[in-house]
Amino acid sequence: MSSLFLRTLRDDPADAEVPSHKLLVRAGYIRRAAPGIYTWLPLGLRVFRKIEDVVREEMNAMGAQEILLPALLPREPYETSGRWTEYGDNVFKLKDRKGADMMLGPTHEELFTQLVKGEYSSYKDLPVILYQIQTKYRDEERPRAGLLRGREFVMKDSYSFDTSDAGLQQSYDLHRAAYQRIFERLNVQYVIVAATSGAMGGSASEEFLAECEVGEDTFVRSTESGYAANVEAVVTPVPDALPLDGLPEVSIHDTGETPTIATLVDWANGALDREVTAADTLKNLLVKIRRPGKDWEIVGIGIPGDRDVDMKRLEAAVEPAEVVLLTEDDFAANPALVRGYIGPKGVQAAGGTYLVDPRVVTGTRWITGADEKGKHVVDLVAGRDFTPDGVIEAAEVRAGDPSPDGHGVLEAARGIEIGHIFQLGRKYADAFELDVLGENGKPVRVTMGSYGLGVSRMVAVLAEQRHDEKGLIWPREVAPYDVHLVIANKDEAAVAGAQQLAEQLDAAGIEVLFDDRKASPGVKFKDAELLGMPTVVVVGRGWADGTVEVRDRASGEAAAVPTDGAVDAVVAAVRGA
Amino acid sequence: MSSLFLRTLRDDPADAEVPSHKLLVRAGYIRRAAPGIYTWLPLGLRVFRKIEDVVREEMNAMGAQEILLPALLPREPYETSGRWTEYGDNVFKLKDRKGADMMLGPTHEELFTQLVKGEYSSYKDLPVILYQIQTKYRDEERPRAGLLRGREFVMKDSYSFDTSDAGLQQSYDLHRAAYQRIFERLNVQYVIVAATSGAMGGSASEEFLAECEVGEDTFVRSTESGYAANVEAVVTPVPDALPLDGLPEVSIHDTGETPTIATLVDWANGALDREVTAADTLKNLLVKIRRPGKDWEIVGIGIPGDRDVDMKRLEAAVEPAEVVLLTEDDFAANPALVRGYIGPKGVQAAGGTYLVDPRVVTGTRWITGADEKGKHVVDLVAGRDFTPDGVIEAAEVRAGDPSPDGHGVLEAARGIEIGHIFQLGRKYADAFELDVLGENGKPVRVTMGSYGLGVSRMVAVLAEQRHDEKGLIWPREVAPYDVHLVIANKDEAAVAGAQQLAEQLDAAGIEVLFDDRKASPGVKFKDAELLGMPTVVVVGRGWADGTVEVRDRASGEAAAVPTDGAVDAVVAAVRGA
Repeated sequence: MSSLFLRTLRDDPADAEVPSHKLLVRAGYIRRAAPGIYTWLPLGLRVFRKIEDVVREEMNAMGAQEILLPALLPREPYETSGRWTEYGDNVFKLKDRKGADMMLGPTHEELFTQLVKGEYSSYKDLPVILYQIQTKYRDEERPRAGLLRGREFVMKDSYSFDTSDAGLQQSYDLHRAAYQRIFERLNVQYVIVAATSGAMGGSASEEFLAECEVGEDTFVRSTESGYAANVEAVVTPVPDALPLDGLPEVSIHDTGETPTIATLVDWANGALDREVTAADTLKNLLVKIRRPGKDWEIVGIGIPGDRDVDMKRLEAAVEPAEVVLLTEDDFAANPALVRGYIGPKGVQAAGGTYLVDPRVVTGTRWITGADEKGKHVVDLVAGRDFTPDGVIEAAEVRAGDPSPDGHGVLEAARGIEIGHIFQLGRKYADAFELDVLGENGKPVRVTMGSYGLGVSRMVAVLAEQRHDEKGLIWPREVAPYDVHLVIANKDEAAVAGAQQLAEQLDAAGIEVLFDDRKASPGVKFKDAELLGMPTVVVVGRGWADGTVEVRDRASGEAAAVPTDGAVDAVVAAVRGA
Repeated sequence: MSSLFLRTLRDDPADAEVPSHKLLVRAGYIRRAAPGIYTWLPLGLRVFRKIEDVVREEMNAMGAQEILLPALLPREPYETSGRWTEYGDNVFKLKDRKGADMMLGPTHEELFTQLVKGEYSSYKDLPVILYQIQTKYRDEERPRAGLLRGREFVMKDSYSFDTSDAGLQQSYDLHRAAYQRIFERLNVQYVIVAATSGAMGGSASEEFLAECEVGEDTFVRSTESGYAANVEAVVTPVPDALPLDGLPEVSIHDTGETPTIATLVDWANGALDREVTAADTLKNLLVKIRRPGKDWEIVGIGIPGDRDVDMKRLEAAVEPAEVVLLTEDDFAANPALVRGYIGPKGVQAAGGTYLVDPRVVTGTRWITGADEKGKHVVDLVAGRDFTPDGVIEAAEVRAGDPSPDGHGVLEAARGIEIGHIFQLGRKYADAFELDVLGENGKPVRVTMGSYGLGVSRMVAVLAEQRHDEKGLIWPREVAPYDVHLVIANKDEAAVAGAQQLAEQLDAAGIEVLFDDRKASPGVKFKDAELLGMPTVVVVGRGWADGTVEVRDRASGEAAAVPTDGAVDAVVAAVRGA
């Protein structure tokens, strides 16, 4: 450490908000070079490389083949896929000296598809899984939290190529299992969440989220089962339909100035002879949806009045269509739509499509708009008085909602995306006409999977999940060094003994960070806690009595070990024996 | 190989001109993604990583510390050093979504200087040598020759920080020795050439050039000693001055229409009673030079008429000044300069500076212009009839010129730059005010060195130096696999035996590329030669007689080895025992 390029800092950096960012900077693992762009200092680089090695080993073990694509990419393939435009401001674009458009790659589906098309031509060549561990770029609007959301970062991305859906499923399963092994080896606490509901025919997709309070991704999980999902992917359990017999007739009421659910509920509790809550009302939101290549169409969305529409869930539900709220002009152009008093009939009368929340089953009765200013209908019964055009997952998911798997209720949690596995299907194969000759001599369109895993981000995830108020606590698999050996005794014999111990540990294959500085024991102990090697060995006061101290950074446990047996004791601590 | 992502090509790619480019593409090591931008396929990536490992090991062994800077860089530090503008079109520049200027780093002096300034503050912290192995970018005007001159490439760049010139020299020497070890391990044929003459006070700088016919760099070396230098760095040996006594008087002659050296020599051989060659004439070239921040000034350059001015040597000699030829307008504005008949006096009369080739020593006599149309002077003696204002290295260097070290003569050769070590001195430390507190408590300005080494380029350099008409021939240290094991026998027992041999070699720590494809032996042998593993093992016809064949790719030697001893024989071949 007397020559290591390392300076620890006493104070948190001014721009850091989350613990991993603060600690990685304070402990001298990383330095900021520009917003969202970091330099790896020696200790940080060692953690990063060890994570990379674990990922590489497990990818190789599953039979994936490593290649390396460029980061600076031509425009053409992204034009073919449509993503040159889709990415918008989220990618870095530039022109070369000849004026050719280029971009810094955020992900490489296009290039891998082209590559396989260039090399392979027969079903016999497949399946193949290719991967790279590579620097990627995204021009984040708000780079934040240090390495957690950067603009230059390293990912492992892999792509599978199969001739059949069953083959794709197998490649997907291989990745799922490899990711589980990787995250287990890295000692990261994570959950696998369903990433899409599949409602609109989307393919299978799961995210691996590191459980973390500072995470940007919200997900829900069951209090009783292993169910976990992105909020966008939660499928609302559908209640049984109710009998229509014996339900009261629908009635229209003058409700005065009641354009909101709250004012409507107030009116109802005064005017009707039963207790009414927001859940008895049907809230109708009007949006416009545009499917790719089609015109905008009006859609009314009916959900129980005690819930809001979750725009992210709505967007996911209609994807790849775009969705926006209706404008003043749209209302002006459609007099059948009476703002604040919209009902199912008004939507359909205006030529719109009327979709409802899955809870709005046949036999449920509702208080909702009568499509006239100041008027509402009461006891409007689904399946009797109106017929929705379909169902949509657009209502917010709430803690306490029943879990879709029927076990327990949902609770909210936060996580950081560390992996994403995705059955792309034939989207890119279609764009690039990636066919191989099939067994029957006819061309077969290839089906693909895309699989991402954050390598540089993982450094911050581990720092986030494993630290205390004193500093970092690395898992053994990725710690920059196995052992932090501190000289805390000025006695010449102790110094020489520590030097010898360092050499013996090194000879035993143990990676030693040796604090040979002339600083005080207090400063050295603080640094050892901040830097976070899993085992700390102190050659201190006990030296005179023939002992050294072996501390476990995670548990804080310390033991005096006879100097003779120190090497064996440390090796045992490191190897977990 | 039945599942390896590899397809060899029969034909050379249309855009390839040099052998390394043709072979690396044909053998499936690399693929072009955009002009000057390549994808590494599995075999290419293995060579690349092994070279990277050798570089890393030797850099660590010399005490350098590895870090990793970003490739996407902010403008500010390059503005501070002046290089944001200097680089011109040679770097990729872009704007982020907020309009901030950024660039893709071609080299990182600025960032390393800033980094050390941020961490270190005392002379006790130095010396330090930091390095990175990183993807770099240059927007080459003419990307060519595959990996030899690309736009995205990987380099090792290191930077040394010292408080004294002696310390800088030591850091420089450490690098020089490490580079020698690296290039020796990589089996590359190279020379170290002086890169600058130091004429204008430039600091020590040497280039490592791989000897190669297709190289872009020309250099010269002595036929007898170890002397080698860039042409720009050759220092002309200065002959002894000659006595002035007894030299004939200067005379002016009407020479008619003789504006060129050839016409002048013709005239002289007719008019004078001695044999005259171009070497007896003094050719005067007129240029304008502008030193940084100064005005243009006229400079006349006098060199023996049998030589041309080498503009690259002239540029290097006047650096950092700019130099251009005189224009028509300049001649029009200076009537003392009579084109085709210029002499030393005319240059000085026009207010210009007159510099001569080092061979123009006192006592040499010359036929040159008389500064009047159609007239020349004969027997104009240096040091008697004219006095130059100085000496300049601008004349071309020719094969057969005496070596500057006094041993042998020079011959020309071509090379590819694979390393460059350079004593930067305080240029960047001055720009960033990088000081540390000295031993005496006063600030000391740090002195720096900058050291580059081409990692991705080395793959092509080795392919260029080591191939034959059949394909690549990798040195063992970086070959993708140690052994290429070919099944060339359809017999079931032979196939099973080959499989077992592959497993035994693998168990013995040998990396095996196993050709288990159902192709013909001819196809397989061709591929083995093209791919270039150092040892090829063939399980073929001899299997029935209890032998396998072990071939050396480089020498072509083949031996039948008993099946029993095959593992040992192959291990011995690989380990060089």
